[in-house]
Amino acid sequence: MAIEKMNVAIVGATGYGGIQLVNLLRNNDNYEIKFLGGHKSAGSKWNELFPFIKIKGDPVIQEINLDIISDNCDVALLSLPNGISSTITPRLLSKGIKIIDLSADYRYKSLNKWKEIYSREDSKYKREDYELCSKAVYGISEINFENISKADLIACPGCYPTSCLIPLIPFVSQGIIENEGIVIDSKSGTSGGGRDPKQNLLFSETGEGISAYGLINHRHTSEIEENLSLISGNQMQITFTPHLVPLVRGMLSTMYGRLKDPGLTSSDCKILLKNYYRKFSNIKVLSEEVYPSTKWAKYTNDIYISLKVDKRNGRIIFISVLDNLLKGQAGQAIQNLNLISGISMNDGLNLTSHYP
Amino acid sequence: MAIEKMNVAIVGATGYGGIQLVNLLRNNDNYEIKFLGGHKSAGSKWNELFPFIKIKGDPVIQEINLDIISDNCDVALLSLPNGISSTITPRLLSKGIKIIDLSADYRYKSLNKWKEIYSREDSKYKREDYELCSKAVYGISEINFENISKADLIACPGCYPTSCLIPLIPFVSQGIIENEGIVIDSKSGTSGGGRDPKQNLLFSETGEGISAYGLINHRHTSEIEENLSLISGNQMQITFTPHLVPLVRGMLSTMYGRLKDPGLTSSDCKILLKNYYRKFSNIKVLSEEVYPSTKWAKYTNDIYISLKVDKRNGRIIFISVLDNLLKGQAGQAIQNLNLISGISMNDGLNLTSHYP
Amino acid sequence: MAIEKMNVAIVGATGYGGIQLVNLLRNNDNYEIKFLGGHKSAGSKWNELFPFIKIKGDPVIQEINLDIISDNCDVALLSLPNGISSTITPRLLSKGIKIIDLSADYRYKSLNKWKEIYSREDSKYKREDYELCSKAVYGISEINFENISKADLIACPGCYPTSCLIPLIPFVSQGIIENEGIVIDSKSGTSGGGRDPKQNLLFSETGEGISAYGLINHRHTSEIEENLSLISGNQMQITFTPHLVPLVRGMLSTMYGRLKDPGLTSSDCKILLKNYYRKFSNIKVLSEEVYPSTKWAKYTNDIYISLKVDKRNGRIIFISVLDNLLKGQAGQAIQNLNLISGISMNDGLNLTSHYP
Amino acid sequence: MAIEKMNVAIVGATGYGGIQLVNLLRNNDNYEIKFLGGHKSAGSKWNELFPFIKIKGDPVIQEINLDIISDNCDVALLSLPNGISSTITPRLLSKGIKIIDLSADYRYKSLNKWKEIYSREDSKYKREDYELCSKAVYGISEINFENISKADLIACPGCYPTSCLIPLIPFVSQGIIENEGIVIDSKSGTSGGGRDPKQNLLFSETGEGISAYGLINHRHTSEIEENLSLISGNQMQITFTPHLVPLVRGMLSTMYGRLKDPGLTSSDCKILLKNYYRKFSNIKVLSEEVYPSTKWAKYTNDIYISLKVDKRNGRIIFISVLDNLLKGQAGQAIQNLNLISGISMNDGLNLTSHYP
Repeated sequence: MAIEKMNVAIVGATGYGGIQLVNLLRNNDNYEIKFLGGHKSAGSKWNELFPFIKIKGDPVIQEINLDIISDNCDVALLSLPNGISSTITPRLLSKGIKIIDLSADYRYKSLNKWKEIYSREDSKYKREDYELCSKAVYGISEINFENISKADLIACPGCYPTSCLIPLIPFVSQGIIENEGIVIDSKSGTSGGGRDPKQNLLFSETGEGISAYGLINHRHTSEIEENLSLISGNQMQITFTPHLVPLVRGMLSTMYGRLKDPGLTSSDCKILLKNYYRKFSNIKVLSEEVYPSTKWAKYTNDIYISLKVDKRNGRIIFISVLDNLLKGQAGQAIQNLNLISGISMNDGLNLTSHYP
Repeated sequence: MAIEKMNVAIVGATGYGGIQLVNLLRNNDNYEIKFLGGHKSAGSKWNELFPFIKIKGDPVIQEINLDIISDNCDVALLSLPNGISSTITPRLLSKGIKIIDLSADYRYKSLNKWKEIYSREDSKYKREDYELCSKAVYGISEINFENISKADLIACPGCYPTSCLIPLIPFVSQGIIENEGIVIDSKSGTSGGGRDPKQNLLFSETGEGISAYGLINHRHTSEIEENLSLISGNQMQITFTPHLVPLVRGMLSTMYGRLKDPGLTSSDCKILLKNYYRKFSNIKVLSEEVYPSTKWAKYTNDIYISLKVDKRNGRIIFISVLDNLLKGQAGQAIQNLNLISGISMNDGLNLTSHYP
Repeated sequence: MAIEKMNVAIVGATGYGGIQLVNLLRNNDNYEIKFLGGHKSAGSKWNELFPFIKIKGDPVIQEINLDIISDNCDVALLSLPNGISSTITPRLLSKGIKIIDLSADYRYKSLNKWKEIYSREDSKYKREDYELCSKAVYGISEINFENISKADLIACPGCYPTSCLIPLIPFVSQGIIENEGIVIDSKSGTSGGGRDPKQNLLFSETGEGISAYGLINHRHTSEIEENLSLISGNQMQITFTPHLVPLVRGMLSTMYGRLKDPGLTSSDCKILLKNYYRKFSNIKVLSEEVYPSTKWAKYTNDIYISLKVDKRNGRIIFISVLDNLLKGQAGQAIQNLNLISGISMNDGLNLTSHYP
Repeated sequence: MAIEKMNVAIVGATGYGGIQLVNLLRNNDNYEIKFLGGHKSAGSKWNELFPFIKIKGDPVIQEINLDIISDNCDVALLSLPNGISSTITPRLLSKGIKIIDLSADYRYKSLNKWKEIYSREDSKYKREDYELCSKAVYGISEINFENISKADLIACPGCYPTSCLIPLIPFVSQGIIENEGIVIDSKSGTSGGGRDPKQNLLFSETGEGISAYGLINHRHTSEIEENLSLISGNQMQITFTPHLVPLVRGMLSTMYGRLKDPGLTSSDCKILLKNYYRKFSNIKVLSEEVYPSTKWAKYTNDIYISLKVDKRNGRIIFISVLDNLLKGQAGQAIQNLNLISGISMNDGLNLTSHYP
């Protein structure tokens, strides 16, 4: 149990992930925000930029400065574009700062895999931190909590991987569904695309439209495959299709698999899932024939899961919903921060679900 | 080639399907609207209800009256809740009126199948028109155009089946993809749920949320399976999941299958699809790596299709988008009306695509 | 200071107002929900209807029963359609239950005024409770807090009146703006229209559209005029136009007036407003040239206000934003509940503002 | 009456205004698109960028080139950011090309006024074309049609000014409403903000929120005041407040004035308005108590107007709706193009109103 407050740096504070981190920590008795890092917004007072999310003391956003961070903080939460984290993480670690990274930089065990998938970023940053990649802990809090609690460097999963790994892991790890032929069809709100202005994320472009993107080789396909493969002990290939839908926050993933034992019922599978996550109050397995809306999870750190088996042929469908910026990003990061701080995993994350 | 205008009845004129039919026919030189049928709106003048979609002569909406229809019309377009069409179709046919039915009443070859799937409606209407069901022609215009052009009774497909049958038929009919394991993940705007007020379709409920519904046994699963089975010559079972997304009009279906010959490339499959529909200008097969938004098809009678093959394992993904109320409903009905009237299939359907 | 928990009935618990009341009270240490009243949902367990807003103990929703309410509760919060409250309020009061009414039934000092404005409801309920109307306290918490704290019957204002009275009262009460010619142009999200299904509130109808309604004689015009008249001591007539905009929650009111002293600046007026409400932390007067989005107030009990003076001619514009279901409805009701319970006004209302 | 097709250049073709121009002209028998100008998109084939709005011949988008334009075109439609038009318009005019400018560059009679209002742009472009400003014709087609038909340079009004000038002009020009105290409260969809990515126009920022901006001194205030002053013969000051609402296309303006003769009824005023525009089929004055949604006008070149008088005090409210990119921008430009080409004003603009 922590006695003193942990001092925290939030680097990349004015992006959507960063704003959530501020929001979750600004009135959290376990932590004190000691550093807000940003680039374009450096020099601005936080409360002027966000008069509706005020921080006591009205801190100024600063350019990234490793000395200031290491002099004042115990942990740094990095919410930066892919590639940048790798330029500061090694030095921060060497100064004794623990790192919770929200980017993709340390999600693969092998840096070579990262270089293959994030080749555009690699051509810019020319990374060599092979060892750090192999040591970083993949931060699905409810799965890896033991390793996370002892880690110095945690790579938080992407929102898409979180939304499908949590439902699938109990079934893949125990060999209940076939490794072959898993289909993941995901739908994301626009905030997953970030706060930097891009034409395709304009209201005029996204409003009143849905579209698919990144078929077959979206970057998260490899992240999901790596983690399912580690868990199953087999090299797995999945089919993953992300879609952009006209809502601000929310992610729904529909997953399709096949039971090895076609005699299992929806009820059997629901019990199995519920049991697997029985200690985790924020993983909510729903009653049969109840299917969640992303609205249920919005502004919370919860994930709701439904499933149904086709009795004719043993195929199984999973539905999960979560808030892509909380359980899919900053909320999970705070779970991990709690774990490395010796605090109860969901402390400070008991957020109200509003409706409608 | 028709010389005189066909006289048309639109029954169920003030629902979303009916409004589209009016819109497509009110200034169409091939047709004259002679009867507008409605129940709650009976007695109202059309132009007072819809001052933004005016009809010359400002007709009055009337209660359904078979004599008036048969005295004045050649064809009746029925846009009614499931079950009601079957109470008037036999009598209209016997009076020599051709029927284009937009409901599910004649979509199955076997009335018993309908009774099984639409048991709630059957308990109310107690249908006995077995023979009509077997004679009705399933109205996918680009597939069944020959039979449609000679038919008296056409059952227009649902929007979901249209969106996935058009892309899949070339591949299933020619045995290019495996019959087993096809997954269809569809996303629909709210107008597919109709204009009658329902709580789950309120803006407050649907806005800022996505949800799945009807898992495994949605009614359209059986409609899709029946048609794929007829085409492939084998009893096929698919997995179909519809989703409600926060947009007014538009449908996107993502379909997953497996190539029998894993050596086929995306390019091969695209050429095959393009060739199959080469005569149909409203079926638009897109270039590789181009994925459509539902916005592209909105307010048009077009369907856009993309596909991509996973070279690692021969799995194939299809994406289709259409306007659920036009190509998915009223537009397809007018294609069929053109066919039975001896008019070019897409006459009057050359609608402008606006952007954004 | 209250020592024991107050026992509360929420009547009309499954409408949007009722759901907010449940949400605000279910984990509030000052109160215990002892009765959940509903009609269509009577007999259902709350947690089955709302698995994402669970109440400990999973209570059953009951038909309205005055004996059960009076036996178990100290206060009843009534979130019912207009007219119904007046059928139970007199009897509940006579049993010693305090009433916080969210409907329009007791908002006018004169029942005759209510009968004029709510004539449709009056023809059904034929009210005679003249005296109660004159005794009820109008529940703008920050204005009438003294009377509210001593009242047995509180009539909570409508969302539109709340959004414009709070900014205008300091200026009207002190004679700073002209009584004549005030224009109020308000924009509301769809949840203000309630949860009962209505065609005009369908996503398909409201999405991608804005419209005005109730010009000149919307019911809230009279409510705003009565309260401004009471405050100014003069009979005031305003022009009020409500608009329906495609968002779920949120209300923005733009108000136009004219300064009696055209020498006053934006800064003067801002200071005046800030000073007037200096004790109320949930009334947030913004810096000059900062204009709020309804998003800022969403899911909170705060109201944000901006203003600007046209130096050329002394005209003044006020902008206010609030969450129509919280500060505009249930949040204000809880402020009033706190006041009659002797609890600090904003206790339990310190809600997080999320972004985006 | 034109016999040959007019040859047209569209400069700024890939912005939202430009796309509408292409859409309105690509299948219009009166015109031929001979030049598509763009900067970032220069070198791209149109049909690859817009596979859903194809142009026959698949032209390439080119960098602006005055010689190519003047060699091939009769008219240039300029849909460019403010200031740029003034750098090419003088030279194009001198080469005998007629100009229809959609920017603000020639909307004021006085260049000095422009320099005051568009000071940021002026510091960059340092304009000296005083005479052109005074000669340019302000392009409200239904008001200035005579001057437009003889003009070489037409300055198309902004969307906000169009939406309020059309309803107000009949009343201001005839002295029916007071010059003093007019309030204009306008609501615009996001496409009015253009297609260049800006943070505040992201779906994540604009979705589920409304906000006001540019209070008192929005640039369009001066444009509206200049035109109302010219029409009334008096120097007029209005209060104009624009709002951003979460819809893609559509604009609703609510205008508040005061009748000089308080004896006039809603019916009188409606007849007056209807009579004023009786020759213009795209200006649609609605029946009393009928208030339009922006959806009615979406994707059309129509403007719908309602009004209502407060019998108590002679105040009058006007509501107008239009599609900000058509009647508010490109549609009005084509009306003007038709006028200078000697073609019927609304030729090619008879667009279908879809619903919902």
